[in-house]
Amino acid sequence: MVVKVYGPTYAAPKGVVMCLIEKEIEFESVPVDLSKGENKTPEFLKIQPFGKIPVIQDGDYTLYESRAINRYLAEKYKNQGTELLGKTIEERGLVEQWLEVEAQNFHPPLHKLVLHVLFAPIRGFPSDPKVIEESEVKLLKVLDIYEERLSKSKYLAGDFFSLADLSHLPFGYYLVNQTGRENLVRERKHVSAWWDDISTRPSWQKVLQLYKYPV
Amino acid sequence: MVVKVYGPTYAAPKGVVMCLIEKEIEFESVPVDLSKGENKTPEFLKIQPFGKIPVIQDGDYTLYESRAINRYLAEKYKNQGTELLGKTIEERGLVEQWLEVEAQNFHPPLHKLVLHVLFAPIRGFPSDPKVIEESEVKLLKVLDIYEERLSKSKYLAGDFFSLADLSHLPFGYYLVNQTGRENLVRERKHVSAWWDDISTRPSWQKVLQLYKYPV
Repeated sequence: MVVKVYGPTYAAPKGVVMCLIEKEIEFESVPVDLSKGENKTPEFLKIQPFGKIPVIQDGDYTLYESRAINRYLAEKYKNQGTELLGKTIEERGLVEQWLEVEAQNFHPPLHKLVLHVLFAPIRGFPSDPKVIEESEVKLLKVLDIYEERLSKSKYLAGDFFSLADLSHLPFGYYLVNQTGRENLVRERKHVSAWWDDISTRPSWQKVLQLYKYPV
Repeated sequence: MVVKVYGPTYAAPKGVVMCLIEKEIEFESVPVDLSKGENKTPEFLKIQPFGKIPVIQDGDYTLYESRAINRYLAEKYKNQGTELLGKTIEERGLVEQWLEVEAQNFHPPLHKLVLHVLFAPIRGFPSDPKVIEESEVKLLKVLDIYEERLSKSKYLAGDFFSLADLSHLPFGYYLVNQTGRENLVRERKHVSAWWDDISTRPSWQKVLQLYKYPV
């Protein structure tokens, strides 16, 4: 069964594509052009009522929200490709914990930073220096905790690569490559080594080769 | 093994307590007084570096982030109490999807609304009418999508109660009971029936009986 993935030129869906590649799942992509409002058409809202990407279709099964999709793929295709959820219930617990840390602590300030540094000039809304500064301060504190954690284990959930690490790539890429703030990663020895490790995985390199970032 | 749960007087840990009750797991609570900064002591930061509650300890295994804790409990104690993750991989996928919707779409505007309507006067920071209005508009749109979903299935992930529903209770309680905005729920027939169903579960009633809300 070939899995359809919607919108892979954008950031969040790239994490799903990486997961598909790590799990050795055949997939095909369905382009969605946000600038043309293709995520707000009645047809699209039928499969994703919030008008967001990514969405996948695995046969007649439709699922949205990138982290939920990746958990589903990692579970359904447990016996092939990279194990992304840990081997025990305790390891999976830690994968879930760090997935939540990514979603609740890492992503929100990074998302704001990317919006105001990178997208404001392009999309023509005002960039707010106060939001940028506050977001950067929050992100610094989060990365200090990551530095401590990664001094004790190679990856976030332990000494194994997991969905928790993978989830940092789509927006982490913006942080390191397109916001002029690579130093936030490079000034932290263990975060820097971790970033190099996960971002040079063949699966992520393949994602970048298949689908360029929109900016 | 008795599971220790930190901070159950506050909102998010109440979801964990409900999960413990649904799963028929023995637990004991460890009080954490945020107003005294007990979540920022060196001892506490050793088990939760971000200084947040809840945290659980299950023997020598420590875990934080409420949604991660609940997934762990539901998986480890799969064979007892209520099944909270669905019976198949596809059902679990939908539980995960709606858990993410709660975390990404429902919770952020509701959290802002509660902060500015309820906590601003108590904690002495200024309540921002613009934030309140924007949050309410966002929440309205989310609840419209819930109304549509709940017209087709009894619960969010399907015709079974799951972690996705449970996750809405700790802050949903504030919305319905303490922000003067119960109408947001009551004006939507299916959301209203769903709210009555999940909030009258004996497990949630037991939580409210054991641990009052801080405000």
